[in-house]
Formats: sequence, structure tokens, C-alpha cells
Amino acid sequence: MGAMEHLEGRQSIFAALQARQRRFEAILLSHGAHEEKFTQILDLAAERGVPVRRADWRELDAIAHGSTHGGMLAIVSEKPRMTPRQLIELLNGIEQPPLLLLLEGIEDARNLGFTLRSAEALGAHAVLIKKHLWDFDSVEIARPSSGAYERMPLVQLEDVEHLTELQNRGLRLIGCLANVRQTLYQANLRRPTIIAIGGEKRGLSGAVRCICDEFLTIPTRPGAASLSLSHAAALVLAEAMRQRMDDNS
Amino acid sequence: MGAMEHLEGRQSIFAALQARQRRFEAILLSHGAHEEKFTQILDLAAERGVPVRRADWRELDAIAHGSTHGGMLAIVSEKPRMTPRQLIELLNGIEQPPLLLLLEGIEDARNLGFTLRSAEALGAHAVLIKKHLWDFDSVEIARPSSGAYERMPLVQLEDVEHLTELQNRGLRLIGCLANVRQTLYQANLRRPTIIAIGGEKRGLSGAVRCICDEFLTIPTRPGAASLSLSHAAALVLAEAMRQRMDDNS
Repeated sequence: MGAMEHLEGRQSIFAALQARQRRFEAILLSHGAHEEKFTQILDLAAERGVPVRRADWRELDAIAHGSTHGGMLAIVSEKPRMTPRQLIELLNGIEQPPLLLLLEGIEDARNLGFTLRSAEALGAHAVLIKKHLWDFDSVEIARPSSGAYERMPLVQLEDVEHLTELQNRGLRLIGCLANVRQTLYQANLRRPTIIAIGGEKRGLSGAVRCICDEFLTIPTRPGAASLSLSHAAALVLAEAMRQRMDDNS
Repeated sequence: MGAMEHLEGRQSIFAALQARQRRFEAILLSHGAHEEKFTQILDLAAERGVPVRRADWRELDAIAHGSTHGGMLAIVSEKPRMTPRQLIELLNGIEQPPLLLLLEGIEDARNLGFTLRSAEALGAHAVLIKKHLWDFDSVEIARPSSGAYERMPLVQLEDVEHLTELQNRGLRLIGCLANVRQTLYQANLRRPTIIAIGGEKRGLSGAVRCICDEFLTIPTRPGAASLSLSHAAALVLAEAMRQRMDDNS
């Protein structure tokens, strides 16, 4: 049945119930919590047959990381990782040109959470992450993601060949690199696109660079530090959204 | 002489030495640290007459927050806060139309650090923060800022009247709000501009909203969570930079 983990706080739990990607073992609600604040969740839990158990606040504190759970925890299965095959099915059902985000070298769970949140808000259809990057604490991802972690399809990439497969289906792999000729604003992001962004220490891997169809650079002020991965990702996705909105106007 | 604080790691210390905004009491370098890695800093410290003292790694650990100091700490004065008067002097010396960022309701030091880093990279001339928000741990701001915390002018705003003063000098105060009519991409950000961004919980304060010259909204996917303050700030500044680059091409 796979490892169980927990979710903390109303926002993550409500998002997970809605997203229907995890199996819910139970929801723990602290004694003395005001039920009105949890009505939506309790209704949805009843609808889905998820048992709700009252617990001491101290019991919640003992399970939780920190004290921001606000009186509610859920014991759930891990968020399922989408396979490359499932991703292709997903893309077949999308009307707009697909917009995917490939992240290499994310440094911590919180930045991943913020990146998923921006990716969702800015129209990415899925986020691709290399397999060895999956060991983050999911509570630490969930909190800054504001629910996006539950909703955003996350594809576990075991091999760059899966990228080539996507390229063969018409997606262009565009790598973000410093100091290449084409700027973000010159790139055509209206077509089916995978945006590849590397970590702050090592940048994009050689294996990914080798198969990129093109590169782009985000213009920044000379002499300043580089943008963080999470902010670079948001800027590229926002530009894709801007270009695609123009086409609709 | 004011409170002293410390900086951790080569990047922050080098940036602070270069920025010349802090007084350096001493630099502590761990026994056994490879001097080659610190040559630039040691040269600059010698030039500025900053004493460098060898210390045990354990002594550094005891002062530092965590263990990412990499063998070097500096004991320094607080980063000076720019007054509104000094800001006006700064703006008088700038050739381009000023681009300022006003932050209300930043939740934590790390997000402030990332925001300063993006603000520097994307061409902001100064960041304005309300007075009561100054109680962050500066080590926690410095690390994600990648040096930008040392270089970026930070203005302590005690009263919205200072904003009105800037408006009287020709700067437009543009507030970011959800669901207003004008989008980020319709706004004219080529003129002298203050971009005002509110916190995730309460948004922009009434006092600031009342005096905004105009508002803009960042287009995002319906149903997604809102962008974080730090990512919203980066998107607006990047659009200002894009519009201003167009004018130069």
C-alpha cells in the first residue's frame, strides 16, 4: 500500500481532497477547534468516506513539523508521481499547446513548493523532476505551494530519453542559460514547449543541454547576482502566458 | 556605535566589503581553512584595514546560525537604512527613470532575501519597507539574497507621506491588486515608478491603496493559488525591464 505521510493545515488538506490524487487514511481534528472553519473540508471528507477523528492539540503537535497545522492533520498516501506515459495521455487531452517545466537541481523543498505554486498560476500543465530529487519532505513542499503541490501533475523523469520522446511528439525543449544570444522575449513560447531550468550551483546538466532545441537567457542587470531557479521559472512561464494571451486577443 | 551583527560565508562578506555600507569590526577565519578560497576577501579586508583573526571552527559554529558559514564570519555594524531624504538624493543621481519597489507585509526573512535578489537582478534602484518590518534576522535575509542585501538600498518608510513626496517628484505609485482591469502588460512602466506589492494575507494596506495613481493585476490561471509576494514582485519588475529595453532597441 506504499508509505503514508501526513498533510498539515486546512489549505493542503482541502486541496488534496479536491485533487483526488491521494488516498486518505484519516483526518485528525483537534478538540476545541471551531468546526465552522473546517466545514468545507468536513463535508468533502464525509462525501469521500474519510474518517475524521478528534485528537488533542498535543497529539497533532507531536506529528506535525512545527506549529502551523492550525488544528488539522491528515494521514494520507504519498502523492502519486505521474509516469512519462501518463503525461503523454494528459497532453493528448489538452487543447492548448502544452507548456511543461523541467527542473534540474532544486535545492530545497520550500523552493520546490514556491515553484509549483508559480507554475500552476502561470499555466504550466506539468512539472518534470529527476528521480533523485524526490526525497523532499512533502509537508515542506506543500506549505509554500498553497495547494498547488496537490493539484500539479509531477512527472518523475528517470531518463532524458523521455524528453526525446516528447520532442518527437512536437514539443520543443528550451533550455535557460546565462549569456546565450536569444533573450526570453525573443523566444517563441506559443508552440508546445518544455522549459528546462537548472539549479543554481551547476546549471543545466550536459545530458539535457545536448538535446535542447534552443536556448534562451533572461535579461538581468549586469553585476547583479543571478535569479533563483524558482524566480527564473516564474519569469519564463509568465512570458509564455503573455505570448499566448496575445494570440487570443 | 549601534548594535553589531554578523555575516556568514564568503558571498555575503565579500558583497558587504564591496558595498562599503557596514563598518567591519573583524573577520573570523577558521583554522585550517584554505586561504586560496578567501584571497579576494583577505585582500579587500587588508585594503580596508579590517582585522582578520583565526578561530576554531567550533567558535564559528557557536556564533553562526546553522553550519553554512564555510569557515568565515564577519562581525559588522547593522546595514544602514536609507532615509527618504537620502533616497531622493540617490534618485537625483540616476539617469534612467527610477524604478522602486514598495513591499508591505513580507512574512519572513528568507522571502525578503529572495525578493532583494530579484529586485537587484531586475533593475530596481531601491526597496522600500515599512518600519515595523525591520526585525528580521539579517543572516536569514543575506543568504538567499546572494549578496543583493548588501548592495540594494533599503529605505525605511515611516509614513505614507514619504510616498506622496515621491509622487510630487513625478514618480507614479502603481499598486498590484487582484482583479483590477489593467493588466501588468497594459501598464506603462517606462515612467518613474514605484511598484507597491502587499503581503499574502492582507494585501496592500488601505493607506497605500488610497494614494495609488493606478493599479495593475498579474494575469494568472483561474482557480490557481495566488503568486507569492516575492514572485509577483519579480514578474512586475521584469516587465518594467522588458518595456525599458524595448525603448533602447
